[in-house]
Amino acid sequence: MNTINVGIIGVATVGSGVMKLLNDNMEVIEKRLGARLHIKQVADKEPDRERVIKIPDSLMTTDPWEIIQDESVPIVVELIGGTTVAKELILEAIDRGKHVVTANKALLALYGEEIFSAAAKRGVDIGFEASVGGGIPILRAIREGYVANRILSIYGIINGTSNYILTKMTEEGRRFDEVLKAAQKKGYAEADPTLDINGGDAAHKLAIAVTLSFGTGIRLEDIYTEGIGNITPLDINFADEFGYKIKLLAVAKARNDGIEGIEVRVHPTLVEKGTPLANVSGVYNAIYIVGDALGPNMLYGMGAGMMPTASAVVGDLVEIARNIIYKTSRVVPPRSYQDSYITRLPIIPITHIVTRYYIRFQVVDKPGVLGQIAGILGKYNISIASVIQKERKIGGDVPVVIMTHEARESDLIRSLEEIDRLPVIKGRSVFIRIEDI
Amino acid sequence: MNTINVGIIGVATVGSGVMKLLNDNMEVIEKRLGARLHIKQVADKEPDRERVIKIPDSLMTTDPWEIIQDESVPIVVELIGGTTVAKELILEAIDRGKHVVTANKALLALYGEEIFSAAAKRGVDIGFEASVGGGIPILRAIREGYVANRILSIYGIINGTSNYILTKMTEEGRRFDEVLKAAQKKGYAEADPTLDINGGDAAHKLAIAVTLSFGTGIRLEDIYTEGIGNITPLDINFADEFGYKIKLLAVAKARNDGIEGIEVRVHPTLVEKGTPLANVSGVYNAIYIVGDALGPNMLYGMGAGMMPTASAVVGDLVEIARNIIYKTSRVVPPRSYQDSYITRLPIIPITHIVTRYYIRFQVVDKPGVLGQIAGILGKYNISIASVIQKERKIGGDVPVVIMTHEARESDLIRSLEEIDRLPVIKGRSVFIRIEDI
Repeated sequence: MNTINVGIIGVATVGSGVMKLLNDNMEVIEKRLGARLHIKQVADKEPDRERVIKIPDSLMTTDPWEIIQDESVPIVVELIGGTTVAKELILEAIDRGKHVVTANKALLALYGEEIFSAAAKRGVDIGFEASVGGGIPILRAIREGYVANRILSIYGIINGTSNYILTKMTEEGRRFDEVLKAAQKKGYAEADPTLDINGGDAAHKLAIAVTLSFGTGIRLEDIYTEGIGNITPLDINFADEFGYKIKLLAVAKARNDGIEGIEVRVHPTLVEKGTPLANVSGVYNAIYIVGDALGPNMLYGMGAGMMPTASAVVGDLVEIARNIIYKTSRVVPPRSYQDSYITRLPIIPITHIVTRYYIRFQVVDKPGVLGQIAGILGKYNISIASVIQKERKIGGDVPVVIMTHEARESDLIRSLEEIDRLPVIKGRSVFIRIEDI
Repeated sequence: MNTINVGIIGVATVGSGVMKLLNDNMEVIEKRLGARLHIKQVADKEPDRERVIKIPDSLMTTDPWEIIQDESVPIVVELIGGTTVAKELILEAIDRGKHVVTANKALLALYGEEIFSAAAKRGVDIGFEASVGGGIPILRAIREGYVANRILSIYGIINGTSNYILTKMTEEGRRFDEVLKAAQKKGYAEADPTLDINGGDAAHKLAIAVTLSFGTGIRLEDIYTEGIGNITPLDINFADEFGYKIKLLAVAKARNDGIEGIEVRVHPTLVEKGTPLANVSGVYNAIYIVGDALGPNMLYGMGAGMMPTASAVVGDLVEIARNIIYKTSRVVPPRSYQDSYITRLPIIPITHIVTRYYIRFQVVDKPGVLGQIAGILGKYNISIASVIQKERKIGGDVPVVIMTHEARESDLIRSLEEIDRLPVIKGRSVFIRIEDI
């Protein structure tokens, strides 16, 4: 039986999972692939860290370049993360004609264009299924399953940590910072959770999904990104009363109203209860994608974790191994589109989007306030769909919550600036976008 | 640009959708495939039927064998359905070295072994993504996305008609036959709905998914199959009170308790509310699959319909076209396992399964009845988890509903035979299996 050598750079959690999976399931993988995947060497700067598997000394090096230079290794798995050494290693591996598998979403979101172009030029494969949605085979679905479709829109819950936090806040009525602290204790949030809670990680993943779905490069700074740090139990409760849940959504939409371009954004979003995405709880991820022929499709599963991520990495190894066995490569283009057709679509600025909004005002409780608010909203062509005004406290402030019909975001911003200058308004008004999915 | 000819046999709903899709989306397909798919000829016994697209006379023939004999056509799409002519056409196409795409689940469930073996021997591809879950790329996910996993279990809502009927019965409290009639009027159920409502269609699809997931051939008659015709609003309501919905589930499980083999069955099932499958409503389909590394994954979407099914067919055409362009074939084995590893796993008889049960007894309303029932259940090692006994009507019959803990089906059957002989029991007891997913 054919044996294909693999080198793994970075053997922390996911890397150990990949080794464990190749060890535990090689029999069934062989029956499907018709060949063996053999781990020739692994590199880790901490060779002795605690792992789910024991790595023989003979396999381990602390020098990743040993693997890159080994001509008997046609596939390199990069799992060290970061955007400096990882980039150098990957580019050098490509330059040496090696195929690469990586889970490094930040690297691909920032330097994808350079890496993909290098791989295209050298004719090598690059697998990155693990970079979006962990074990969920979403990139494969876009490249192959949906290949006959124009992708119309993507709605993703693609950051498990933030979804876990929002779920706990919703179920237990607790504040963001309390829940975050508890999540850190349980290992559901990292010591530095910044990228998870500020939407950055979701934006990295969305950038990758957008490239494959629409055949476009995208700069990370063009993705409007807003995290969940300002979401309060108060807003979660009001959303609930209106029949909605609050989710951190990664959204991309092809505009079809004469404006050429795509909307690409990550932000907390009201999603109607009972719809498929609203039911995605805890650390689970889901990607809801609409194709013109397909209609809606949703893929749901564990978006992170040692073994789900390893499942995606080994899936990529098998795909590349098949190409090696058949003496070919890049049968399916890594970015879904043939390289010569990758373009740069205009990104619609966030101010130009049109959607419905949830707005919460903190107002002095006296007659006529709602009228003043409605008047200004009306001036900016924003019409009110429904209102909740809670029981009145004499002389105190009360929240007034409004759901609007569709409005343009620039109009909303200007109306809120004007409303927030009213003497009856206390503090800054809060708004959250609504998506009807 | 490379052009690959395609012949389509059967141009009713799905065939028209395939033509429409190839026509409408060829630009985007080309950008991904790097080649054109060209419809060389189509065959239909009713050339003039009404369609969403106009077919030029020059393309149409009434003789499918013309396409099979055309040496310039490397890929044939079979969409006539049925298991006689379709089988002949496919086998002859394979024999002539043509690749085949089909949506014919009945044919593959009945004669898959013969067809797959012929394709393997001749070295041609066979694409059948459209046969399970319509536009949902579940077969691709099993073959590629989950390739590193041992598949542990599959739970599918894979018949849209029966899911639509159960959803309407649940939402509107109406009887099966009423809802079926309404569904037929709306076109959600066929004039002859037998295979949809008796579980047969779901069994066909499950047979295919099982082959790919477990690398085993399976005889249709080995799949325990029970339809939804006996489900009543009464049971739907009781299930609801216990916190469950009733779904027609296609279930396959690898047994890991020392018994070698798999459970493969289709039947109405209680699924806990709030879980992903319980939320799959109307004509939507979903396949929930558990891999040992992956954990649970669910794919959700339109399981039927012209364009979703066409999306899957054209996806297969693109995969085969890629192989043709790269002068190879069968890069991914059609049955997921290499042909030499396809085996014949034992199928566990339905009497040997162990699960929880919902049981409804119709009893004479007098003291001590529940005790008698519980006594007999206990004798067969069936313990009661919860009970609902509704308000008493003096002298009348009342339903008593019991949820059991895990029990062996043969024990359940024997206990019910004994219970049903009690003088206090009116009519035959009803039981529905529960799955904890």
